[in-house]
Amino acid sequence: MQNFDYQTPTRLIFGKGVIEKLPGVMASVGRKVLLTYGGGSIKKIGLYQKVLELLKGFEIVELSGIQPNPKYDPSVLEGVRLCKAHGIEVILSVGGGSVLDCSKAIAAGACYEGDPWDLITRKVRAKAALPIVDILTLAATGSEYDQYGVISRTETNDKVSYGDPLVYPHTSFLDPTYTFSVSKKQTAAGIADAMNHTIEQYFTEDTTLLNDGFCESMLRSLMVNGRKCLDHPEDYTARAEMMLACTYGCNGILALGNTYSGWPCHGIEHALSAYYDITHGEGLAIITPRWMNHILSERTLDRFVKYGINVFGIDASLDKWEIARKAIDATYGFFESIGIPMHLREVGIDESRIGEMAHHIAVNEGLENAYVPLSEKDIHEILTASL
Amino acid sequence: MQNFDYQTPTRLIFGKGVIEKLPGVMASVGRKVLLTYGGGSIKKIGLYQKVLELLKGFEIVELSGIQPNPKYDPSVLEGVRLCKAHGIEVILSVGGGSVLDCSKAIAAGACYEGDPWDLITRKVRAKAALPIVDILTLAATGSEYDQYGVISRTETNDKVSYGDPLVYPHTSFLDPTYTFSVSKKQTAAGIADAMNHTIEQYFTEDTTLLNDGFCESMLRSLMVNGRKCLDHPEDYTARAEMMLACTYGCNGILALGNTYSGWPCHGIEHALSAYYDITHGEGLAIITPRWMNHILSERTLDRFVKYGINVFGIDASLDKWEIARKAIDATYGFFESIGIPMHLREVGIDESRIGEMAHHIAVNEGLENAYVPLSEKDIHEILTASL
Repeated sequence: MQNFDYQTPTRLIFGKGVIEKLPGVMASVGRKVLLTYGGGSIKKIGLYQKVLELLKGFEIVELSGIQPNPKYDPSVLEGVRLCKAHGIEVILSVGGGSVLDCSKAIAAGACYEGDPWDLITRKVRAKAALPIVDILTLAATGSEYDQYGVISRTETNDKVSYGDPLVYPHTSFLDPTYTFSVSKKQTAAGIADAMNHTIEQYFTEDTTLLNDGFCESMLRSLMVNGRKCLDHPEDYTARAEMMLACTYGCNGILALGNTYSGWPCHGIEHALSAYYDITHGEGLAIITPRWMNHILSERTLDRFVKYGINVFGIDASLDKWEIARKAIDATYGFFESIGIPMHLREVGIDESRIGEMAHHIAVNEGLENAYVPLSEKDIHEILTASL
Repeated sequence: MQNFDYQTPTRLIFGKGVIEKLPGVMASVGRKVLLTYGGGSIKKIGLYQKVLELLKGFEIVELSGIQPNPKYDPSVLEGVRLCKAHGIEVILSVGGGSVLDCSKAIAAGACYEGDPWDLITRKVRAKAALPIVDILTLAATGSEYDQYGVISRTETNDKVSYGDPLVYPHTSFLDPTYTFSVSKKQTAAGIADAMNHTIEQYFTEDTTLLNDGFCESMLRSLMVNGRKCLDHPEDYTARAEMMLACTYGCNGILALGNTYSGWPCHGIEHALSAYYDITHGEGLAIITPRWMNHILSERTLDRFVKYGINVFGIDASLDKWEIARKAIDATYGFFESIGIPMHLREVGIDESRIGEMAHHIAVNEGLENAYVPLSEKDIHEILTASL
C-alpha cells in the first residue's frame, strides 16, 4: 500500500428541494457573485429563474455560453476579466461538469495577475482562488467533489487537466430532479464517464480488497441505475444513486493507497475531444474496451478475472483467459446497449489524424508511466482499433 | 433515498514515516500544544519521544492517563482546565479512539465558559473548539475521521455519544507501523468495533446498491485483513488496510442517503461499558449476533439474505431463512474465531443488573426509533440472550 495525503473539504447538500439552502450558503462566502452557466437548459427547467429569485439582494454578474469541453478562449478569459472588473467574491456554477471545470479555472485565474494558462498548465502554482458553489444538473464528471478541471485550447489542440486543492468546490448542491430532463445521449455519456473513472483506478497495482470492493460496487451501481435512468428518466431513486456514485469518481476515495494508474483512457480521450470536440463520455466508452484488449496479458490477467467475476458475474470456474475476454466483451456490450456509438467513425473521426493524435498523446500525457506503459505505437494501435 | 448534508474536512496523512510532516502541520494551527495520551504504550514504541523531538520549540503541556471509555472526571475536566490555564492553541492526541474522543470533548470544553457536560449532552451547542491533530495508534473507532466522541461519567453510569462538526480532527496521522504492537485482544476488539459500525449502517431502510456494496467490502476486508493482523502482527499491508477501513466507520460515507438506523448495538453496548467498563469492541461483538437473532423477521429477512450471500459467500440457492440463520451464525463464529469472549459472563457481567441496564437504555438511547424498534422488553431479552 502506498502512502497518501488526502482531503476533500467540499460540503455536499444532496436531495430534492435542497436549493432552499442556497441563500444561506452563499451569504457565508460572498455577496458579489459570478453566475456561470452553459446554454439555455437551466432556463428550460426553471432553475435559472429559481436561483435569481433566491439570490435577490446579491449582486450578480453573468457568464453564459460555456460549452462542453470548456474553452480557454473565450470562456475562462472572459470569466477572469469579469471577476476582476466587478470585484467578484464567489462563483456560482449552475450546470454540468464543463461549467464547473471552467469555473474552477476562472476562480484561480481571478486571483492571479499573469496569464491564467500558467496556472492551468501548472507552470505557476496558484496562491489563492475564489470560492466556488455549484448546482449540478448532470451526473457524470465528479467535478462537484474534486479539485480537477479540464480546459481546451482550440488553436493548439490542447485539452489540459489541471488540479489544485484551492479549487475544491466550497459546497455542491446535488438535486437529482435537475437531471430528469437530461437527454438519453448525455445520460449514457455520463454513465460511461463515471464508469471509466472507476475503471481507471481499478486497473493498477497495490490495490486493496477495500478499494476493489468500492470500485466494483460503483460499476454495478452505475450499470443498474444508469439503465433505469435511461428507461425511466424521472425515476428519482435511480437518478439519485447515479448522481451520488458519480461524485466519487475523481476525488481519490476509490484508490487511496493504490499505485497511481496514469489514467490512460483519459490521456487518449483528451486528444480526441481536443481535435474533434466529441462528447467526453462517448470518447471514453469507445477507447476503454480497445485499451483493455491491448493491455490484457499474463501480467494483467488476474485483474481482468477479478473484474469479470465481481462486476459482471462471469462464472468463476471458467478458464482465466476466457473470463478476461468475456469481461472485455461485456464492457463493450454494456456501452453499446445504452446507445453509445462505439466506433470513432460514428462520432466523425477517421484515420486521417490518428498519427498526429498518437504523437500528441505520447508527448503530452505521460502514458509511459501508466499501469501498462503505452508508447506512441501502442496508442496508435488503440486508436486504430477504435475506428 | 433520503436527503443529506455531508462534509468531512479532516486531512488524512497516511503511511509509514508520515510523522515527519507533523511539525509543518502543527505550525499551521498553533504553537501552544496540549499533548494528550493514555498509558505508557506510546513511550514503549518510541512515539512519545519522537513527537517531543519533532516539536522542539513548541510549548507543550501534557495530559496523560486517559483511559479506555474515557472519563469526564478527571480527564475531560482536567484537560479543559489545562487548556484555559495555559492558553492552549491546539490539541495533539496521540493514541487510540479513547484519547481522541476525550480530546474532542476537551477541544469544545476549552472554548466554553460553562460546564462542559452541557456540550457533551448537547444541551448547549458549542460555538467554537480548539483544532485537534491526532496520531493514531489503534485501528478501531474511526474517531480520526469523524465528528463524534463517547464520554463516560462513572457516578451516574452515563456513557454519552456527542458530536459536533467543530471537533472533526484538523489532521489525522495514520501510520500502520504504530499498530504493530497492539495486542491480540485489542486488535480483535478493533476488528469487531469497525465491523459493527458497518453493520449498524447496513441494516436499515432505503439502502442503495452503492452503499450496500461499500459496506460489504468493508466487512470482507476487515475479516480478511483483521485475521492477517492477528496471525502476523507486523504485516504492513494488512495493518494498513485495516487502518484505512476503520477510518470509514463513522463518518457517514457508508450510509449517505440511507434512513438513519438508530445504531442499536451501540445504544445497548454503551450501557454495558458504562456499568462495567468493559472493552467497547468486545461488548459490540457479544451483542451483535444476539440483536440479529432478535430482529430477524419476515420484514428484515431480505437484508439478512443479502448480507449472508455478499459478506460470507453463503450459497444463494438455499432457502432464505436458512441463509439468514447461517449469516448470523457466521457473524458469531467469526468473532469467536478471533478470540473474542462471546458471553457477557466472560467479561464479568452477570444477570444482577440486566433489568437496571435495560431500563437505562430504553430511557436514554432512543431505540424505539431504530431500524427495528426496541422496547425495554426487547433490550432485556437481547441482554439475557447475551449472558
